[in-house]
Amino acid sequence: MNKFERGLKIREQIIGEKASGSVTDSLKDIAPILDKYTQVAFDEMSNRDALNMQQREMITLTTLVTQGDTASQLRVHIQGALNVGLSQEEIVEIFIQCLPYVGFPKVLNAVSVAKEVFKQSSN
Amino acid sequence: MNKFERGLKIREQIIGEKASGSVTDSLKDIAPILDKYTQVAFDEMSNRDALNMQQREMITLTTLVTQGDTASQLRVHIQGALNVGLSQEEIVEIFIQCLPYVGFPKVLNAVSVAKEVFKQSSN
Amino acid sequence: MNKFERGLKIREQIIGEKASGSVTDSLKDIAPILDKYTQVAFDEMSNRDALNMQQREMITLTTLVTQGDTASQLRVHIQGALNVGLSQEEIVEIFIQCLPYVGFPKVLNAVSVAKEVFKQSSN
Amino acid sequence: MNKFERGLKIREQIIGEKASGSVTDSLKDIAPILDKYTQVAFDEMSNRDALNMQQREMITLTTLVTQGDTASQLRVHIQGALNVGLSQEEIVEIFIQCLPYVGFPKVLNAVSVAKEVFKQSSN
Amino acid sequence: MNKFERGLKIREQIIGEKASGSVTDSLKDIAPILDKYTQVAFDEMSNRDALNMQQREMITLTTLVTQGDTASQLRVHIQGALNVGLSQEEIVEIFIQCLPYVGFPKVLNAVSVAKEVFKQSSN
Amino acid sequence: MNKFERGLKIREQIIGEKASGSVTDSLKDIAPILDKYTQVAFDEMSNRDALNMQQREMITLTTLVTQGDTASQLRVHIQGALNVGLSQEEIVEIFIQCLPYVGFPKVLNAVSVAKEVFKQSSN
Repeated sequence: MNKFERGLKIREQIIGEKASGSVTDSLKDIAPILDKYTQVAFDEMSNRDALNMQQREMITLTTLVTQGDTASQLRVHIQGALNVGLSQEEIVEIFIQCLPYVGFPKVLNAVSVAKEVFKQSSN
Repeated sequence: MNKFERGLKIREQIIGEKASGSVTDSLKDIAPILDKYTQVAFDEMSNRDALNMQQREMITLTTLVTQGDTASQLRVHIQGALNVGLSQEEIVEIFIQCLPYVGFPKVLNAVSVAKEVFKQSSN
Repeated sequence: MNKFERGLKIREQIIGEKASGSVTDSLKDIAPILDKYTQVAFDEMSNRDALNMQQREMITLTTLVTQGDTASQLRVHIQGALNVGLSQEEIVEIFIQCLPYVGFPKVLNAVSVAKEVFKQSSN
Repeated sequence: MNKFERGLKIREQIIGEKASGSVTDSLKDIAPILDKYTQVAFDEMSNRDALNMQQREMITLTTLVTQGDTASQLRVHIQGALNVGLSQEEIVEIFIQCLPYVGFPKVLNAVSVAKEVFKQSSN
Repeated sequence: MNKFERGLKIREQIIGEKASGSVTDSLKDIAPILDKYTQVAFDEMSNRDALNMQQREMITLTTLVTQGDTASQLRVHIQGALNVGLSQEEIVEIFIQCLPYVGFPKVLNAVSVAKEVFKQSSN
Repeated sequence: MNKFERGLKIREQIIGEKASGSVTDSLKDIAPILDKYTQVAFDEMSNRDALNMQQREMITLTTLVTQGDTASQLRVHIQGALNVGLSQEEIVEIFIQCLPYVGFPKVLNAVSVAKEVFKQSSN
């Protein structure tokens, strides 16, 4: 396997095959290189030992809630966080931990996305 | 102990007595209520079990690197992360994990603060 | 009344009973503590004399327009600003005053939310 | 022609008559002064020689992708970029050039808006 | 008086003659048009009745604290707020009102600038 | 030459050998992988034809001014923009073009960095 294939496989493990396929599909006619770049990013990440996948998804959710305007990325990575074994309670607590640093609007927006993902995930 | 005293104690454990004292000193003449509010925030956080202190500092560093213009807060919480037991390698890896989501400028700014804190910390 | 009850009452006065109830409902299964925290925030605010409610809503609208990705919060607080006695003209002028500091995109987004709230409010 | 008329004409040339008319219509009852201000901004810009219109739209797209929460402005200015002669490939490359500086979420959001504009534009 | 002269005069009244002169001096060799544009912005603002100067400086401080990386602008407008008659207590309370919406880092950064301005202002 | 060597060479051409060496030096003990990643980013960029180096630096400056808290990156890339052949007038005009989209604080901060770089550059 080359770095793209390895990265694609990791991406499928984290965000799920369906979401991973959607990334590829949505980019294939307009910017396929961006699909490749995300694969490289996932491969690089998985080659590095200092943090495990649960910690990496925790960090990813935190950076998404903090920067705002990331509802679609939060949707993908809240599911990703569940996929790598974080509990619903831990995911919500990540957002609560952000509250003193980013304020209510960003936290409430993220919790609202989480609610929607948890509901679909339990169906 | 009331919530302020408990929060102050937690704050001292995480960011260190000296940094905690600096917060109180710098706010006492202009906005002492903000010092109280940070104590309440630390107390609330420590009352909640879903995440441990290492995870909370990991999240705190991530939100600080993502929002930018937080060099002085990063200084305090990089030391805080060391105090609760995160290694230098883990701290740098938190910033590296943020790279695909926030880009180089914010990550390089944070690494530069970490370098300075690690140097002082080893003296 | 304890601080939560007082805060809830203030919240109802400012954003209206219906919007306040929606906050509680939307958080009750996923993060009820965040509902409590907003109540504490409203109670704290109302205990402090240096600014009145009209000034506080003016500041709230300004911080929301500036940070972006806050359409749902703007919706609630534009109505809140009307509820505490700011006129439609004053609310629009708050956004215009932000123009030299934040640029057109954020201001036009906020005006677009205001237009929608004013229309519903007059029905 | 006065500055408003000149600015309006430039705005029509860049974003198209229909989008320009929508700006005027959407602001006329709530904040007509903002419509006037955008006209002045377009007039000022066209009076200055150091950059041409293609370069200016390139910069505009970059600032919109970087600040986030600007889907409706991106929609207008991606069409604007096409109108002043930038190719679809160049527009996508602008977003790709931003990747190392802003990260994937903002870039993927912008590419998604571009995809939608290119499709409508080719109908 | 033309709009530039009127705007310059308003700017001097709000931020003080010395700070206003510094703006002109710092821009005169590199981007004098930006000095002119700020004059037009101050003139426009003063022509509009819906908000008074105290309210406008309140909004200006709020937008500056919210966007971050504005220490030098905060310095000028905290003095400006004092010049138009806001008290030190009101200025600090503006920042405290922002806390639930932007979090501690931005608020503490702003309070730290205020402390410095208040000290110089009392000498 | 491998991708790292090619990227390093491009980086030296754009930001200059001295600044490129500083990046390597500052990262070598703490996060050498980030130095490698920037080399890959420069190599990727130079492999893509849709935009030339002047356009890429134009976009880079725009994204830096828009995100704020990037004084040290602006310093490097304003020099980079000069190195690839943009004039001082064009660089300042990039910042002026951003004004209607980001407001005065970010633009004035960037112009202030440009002034400093232009002065050193002419010595």
